[in-house]
Amino acid sequence: MQYFPGTGPAPDQREVNRAVESAFADHGYGLVQMPPKVYVTLPGGDFRTMPAYLPSLKISGVKIVNVHPENPKQGLPTVMALTVILDIATGKPVAILNATHLTDMRTGAAGAVAAKHLAPKKTVTLGVAGTGRQAVAQVRATAEELKIEKILIWSRNPRHAVEFARRMDVFDCTSVSLEKACDADVIVTTTPSRTPIIQSEWVHEGTHINAIGADAPGKEELDPALLKRSQVFVDDMAQATHSGEVNVPIAQGLYRPEDIAGTLGDVIIGKKQRESPDRITIFDSTGLAIQDLAIAAIAMRKGTAIDLLFP
Amino acid sequence: MQYFPGTGPAPDQREVNRAVESAFADHGYGLVQMPPKVYVTLPGGDFRTMPAYLPSLKISGVKIVNVHPENPKQGLPTVMALTVILDIATGKPVAILNATHLTDMRTGAAGAVAAKHLAPKKTVTLGVAGTGRQAVAQVRATAEELKIEKILIWSRNPRHAVEFARRMDVFDCTSVSLEKACDADVIVTTTPSRTPIIQSEWVHEGTHINAIGADAPGKEELDPALLKRSQVFVDDMAQATHSGEVNVPIAQGLYRPEDIAGTLGDVIIGKKQRESPDRITIFDSTGLAIQDLAIAAIAMRKGTAIDLLFP
Repeated sequence: MQYFPGTGPAPDQREVNRAVESAFADHGYGLVQMPPKVYVTLPGGDFRTMPAYLPSLKISGVKIVNVHPENPKQGLPTVMALTVILDIATGKPVAILNATHLTDMRTGAAGAVAAKHLAPKKTVTLGVAGTGRQAVAQVRATAEELKIEKILIWSRNPRHAVEFARRMDVFDCTSVSLEKACDADVIVTTTPSRTPIIQSEWVHEGTHINAIGADAPGKEELDPALLKRSQVFVDDMAQATHSGEVNVPIAQGLYRPEDIAGTLGDVIIGKKQRESPDRITIFDSTGLAIQDLAIAAIAMRKGTAIDLLFP
Repeated sequence: MQYFPGTGPAPDQREVNRAVESAFADHGYGLVQMPPKVYVTLPGGDFRTMPAYLPSLKISGVKIVNVHPENPKQGLPTVMALTVILDIATGKPVAILNATHLTDMRTGAAGAVAAKHLAPKKTVTLGVAGTGRQAVAQVRATAEELKIEKILIWSRNPRHAVEFARRMDVFDCTSVSLEKACDADVIVTTTPSRTPIIQSEWVHEGTHINAIGADAPGKEELDPALLKRSQVFVDDMAQATHSGEVNVPIAQGLYRPEDIAGTLGDVIIGKKQRESPDRITIFDSTGLAIQDLAIAAIAMRKGTAIDLLFP
């Protein structure tokens, strides 16, 4: 058994995007095994357990990932992740990976792949709500798929937006109001909001939105009226209705599971698509265990590991 | 983060029995968080993911355990297990344990605790069906709770029964027919059977049975007629009806979830009990994630570990 501490160079984002795209295609074809992630609540946060088997890559395993919002106060990341990989022939644990940065990258990849298939054009203005690790990951991954002409960045704390612009200085990045950030070809929301922050009237026709922040029951970032006038694609039906952007509107009777247009996998394999240039499309990302297996396969091939005695 | 390879002395079985008994008591009081285990099927077997949070021990984590019946042909155990422990305050992974032997011990402890509370007397003849690792673990753990006067051992392969008797030579151990093995005060079944092997008419009044083998949908060891005339206690309602001894009879309409007398936790906290000396009692064990956390707490206190870089 090997432990990959995640030191050394990170996987190539373009390669990760392709691997994640391919995993979503397998999901679209019904070729994966992936029970919905399981939540356990702890005093200061929660952890999620995400098992899966991805036959096309001959890989199976479990990601374990926490969300503890107060962690940064003691110098720890809010989100930390570990992935355990099992040999599919014998069930033997063969690798354990520090998957904290891999989680950022594979979530970025899902947004990037959604934008590749659903954005109205190939050269875009990108509106970004939130300036945390996932905002950075989304921009970096999306830049591998689309030409980003301009970034309109918004944070509840304007200083964070300025810092983000400085950090991402390879891009033309402007700190703006949230309404202004919505005047974009592609909008990415990465906040931990529990009430809608993006108003429907701020979003013009033809926009694509990656709704990344909502990944647990009770979380939402988008005006339910915006969902109603859009084509909503989810990563996985069971997970999204339980904990994705649509979970609160569904629980409140403002949106119905049958209003969901399909999955990202459906889009990638050509079963579903943007209906017209002026439709608004939304990708509701909760994060799939198969994304974690896809990036683990790359990290295990390229990373450095130490050997652990097992069994 | 520390890795416990499981080398060195194993935890003390008596201490494990007490810790498991205490975890079941917490379960009886409704003081634990434990979603039902999740199954993923692989080509040659399956693996199960078992997350939980046990507040009384301030411990949370996930056990990952496979079942691959063909593994011994290539020199690997059928069942291998890994437990990941997370800090409850921050969600940070703090320990990874080789939990293969711990799994044997904690399963043995559940049977032992059930026998302690439900056996008709304190000095017993023990009938054992099956001679694998779990048969050994059940006998060793039960010997800490009851005086075992005599073991009646049965295996489909009589040579295995003779080997078992030789290995367990601190006990008075006789290889017998399965019917003969049922003429005991406590019967323990540890086979991977998918059809009933214990006939109801072989079991006399007042017997206690630990049904250990059935731990996945489709598995069963006991004649459904035996369930009907007994008080059946399960480890966990959701898990047992899905994958315990009762799962097949319930699916076939031969038994009903409402016929279940209660949980082992209920018995330990005194909410439920053996109704009379001549009732047959059955403990249906599927294996709980809180048992794994309870034994992990002991193993982390007493085991030797190596340090791993995280995050």
